Amino acid sequence: MGINVKSKWKVAGGILSQYEHQSTSTKTGMTFSVFVPGDVPGDAKIPGIYYLSGLTCTDENFCQKAGAFSSAAKHKVALILPDTSPRGTDIPGEHDSYDFGSGAGFYLNATEDKWSENYRMYDYVCVELPKIVLDNFPIDPDRVSIMGHSMGGHGALTIAMKNPTSYKSVSAFAPICNPSKCAWGVKAFTGYLGADESAWLEYDAVELMKSFGPFKFEILLDQGSSDNFYQQKQLLPEAFEQACNEKGQVLKFNMQAGYDHSYYFISTFVPDHIDFHANFLLDN
Amino acid sequence: MGINVKSKWKVAGGILSQYEHQSTSTKTGMTFSVFVPGDVPGDAKIPGIYYLSGLTCTDENFCQKAGAFSSAAKHKVALILPDTSPRGTDIPGEHDSYDFGSGAGFYLNATEDKWSENYRMYDYVCVELPKIVLDNFPIDPDRVSIMGHSMGGHGALTIAMKNPTSYKSVSAFAPICNPSKCAWGVKAFTGYLGADESAWLEYDAVELMKSFGPFKFEILLDQGSSDNFYQQKQLLPEAFEQACNEKGQVLKFNMQAGYDHSYYFISTFVPDHIDFHANFLLDN
Repeated sequence: MGINVKSKWKVAGGILSQYEHQSTSTKTGMTFSVFVPGDVPGDAKIPGIYYLSGLTCTDENFCQKAGAFSSAAKHKVALILPDTSPRGTDIPGEHDSYDFGSGAGFYLNATEDKWSENYRMYDYVCVELPKIVLDNFPIDPDRVSIMGHSMGGHGALTIAMKNPTSYKSVSAFAPICNPSKCAWGVKAFTGYLGADESAWLEYDAVELMKSFGPFKFEILLDQGSSDNFYQQKQLLPEAFEQACNEKGQVLKFNMQAGYDHSYYFISTFVPDHIDFHANFLLDN
Repeated sequence: MGINVKSKWKVAGGILSQYEHQSTSTKTGMTFSVFVPGDVPGDAKIPGIYYLSGLTCTDENFCQKAGAFSSAAKHKVALILPDTSPRGTDIPGEHDSYDFGSGAGFYLNATEDKWSENYRMYDYVCVELPKIVLDNFPIDPDRVSIMGHSMGGHGALTIAMKNPTSYKSVSAFAPICNPSKCAWGVKAFTGYLGADESAWLEYDAVELMKSFGPFKFEILLDQGSSDNFYQQKQLLPEAFEQACNEKGQVLKFNMQAGYDHSYYFISTFVPDHIDFHANFLLDN
């Protein structure tokens, strides 16, 4: 199915475009953005990095606040920015809280009746959107990486581990590492997947690492020490670090003193993350 | 009078803080933000750059969207971000339009009765805020520059020309260069200064350049060619360029193909602007 341009901007010598389309995964309209750097020869294929956003965000937060485009332009890497949930449905309770329902799809395929028709962000991000991206943009399918923030960091880690040959490298800013063990995750998984905790494990980065690690790709993880959600034990990066250590997974885990959970933290370290991915995506 | 911290973030190795205080110029509460880079020795004085925002903005737009802090941190230069108008008053008509009243102070001292009590953003930015900044932050009063966007570009150009020894360098993104001759300016000047156009000239960058140029400081001006406000002749940079040429003023005027009026344009060129100012603010 076709995609329609909603908006287009020149930035950092490239073009940032926002698209809308009808999603077969979520059975709703969906919006995403793509940044394509400038000076790409007409027939060249370039690498792409997916960025998955956190709770309450759309595709626009990263575009407006991360300051990432100059780094992507420097490496001639495209960025793909999906939304965080289906939109335009009005399932009872969908818009009642910031951490469940709209803006909070948790990058999974819901199985509970109420949500299973539309809340299929795992399929959307892993299957449907990549096909759309390859059909419409000059992106090399063999040179793709993934990163994300908070709920999107959870998405990046779990999607990469569930599709270990699809991504060259994985990184996360303050990810929800162990959702089965934190309040955000328990609420979301109970709602979307039901009370049987065994169904939660396939969407829990710590559990996936324990079951299937180590992986060929390297993982970069930055966490701010002054992040209130880290302090409230919503993120639990140490559990992920421990699982990586036990399995021999290559992980660079940086505790960044004084940084919080905001885009000021992301904007500070996003050049490092794009450099990290470029190292695996580019020949040089 | 004292200033109170509203918010504080670590970003790019430095600290971005937002303050509120009672302004003697506007007789209202006012908010501003300051970025102080990290690794500044305890007793050192560093240079500072004021950034004046455009219509509808507060101090926060630049902070969140410009991606400027890594450049400021690189040069160890502070950034000072004022708001664009008095806040908290409810003068009849003040909140009716985006281009007059709240969010649209035009960096002048109003003389019309209705506005003259509070709309004194010229005094606020030129006199009151610099004193507060020097009293509270490690900024060298002899190494200060100024820049701005759109209405704030107008502010930066006119304030610098009216205070030619106060700023080492001046730059602007898509400034309103000749407000006496564009719809935005005519509306604002008529409202704040009255119908007598002779009173408008002291707040018009083209007229100030014609009357008092050339100035010792250099001026950098970037304009996007796809900026709809440029195309609608709200900005008139060519008139400013012509006045500079006639007076022998050093001006770097870059027409940037394909860029619009948004923060995507600003974020692309803000490193160039901070590099430009650093060239005059730093010894190296």
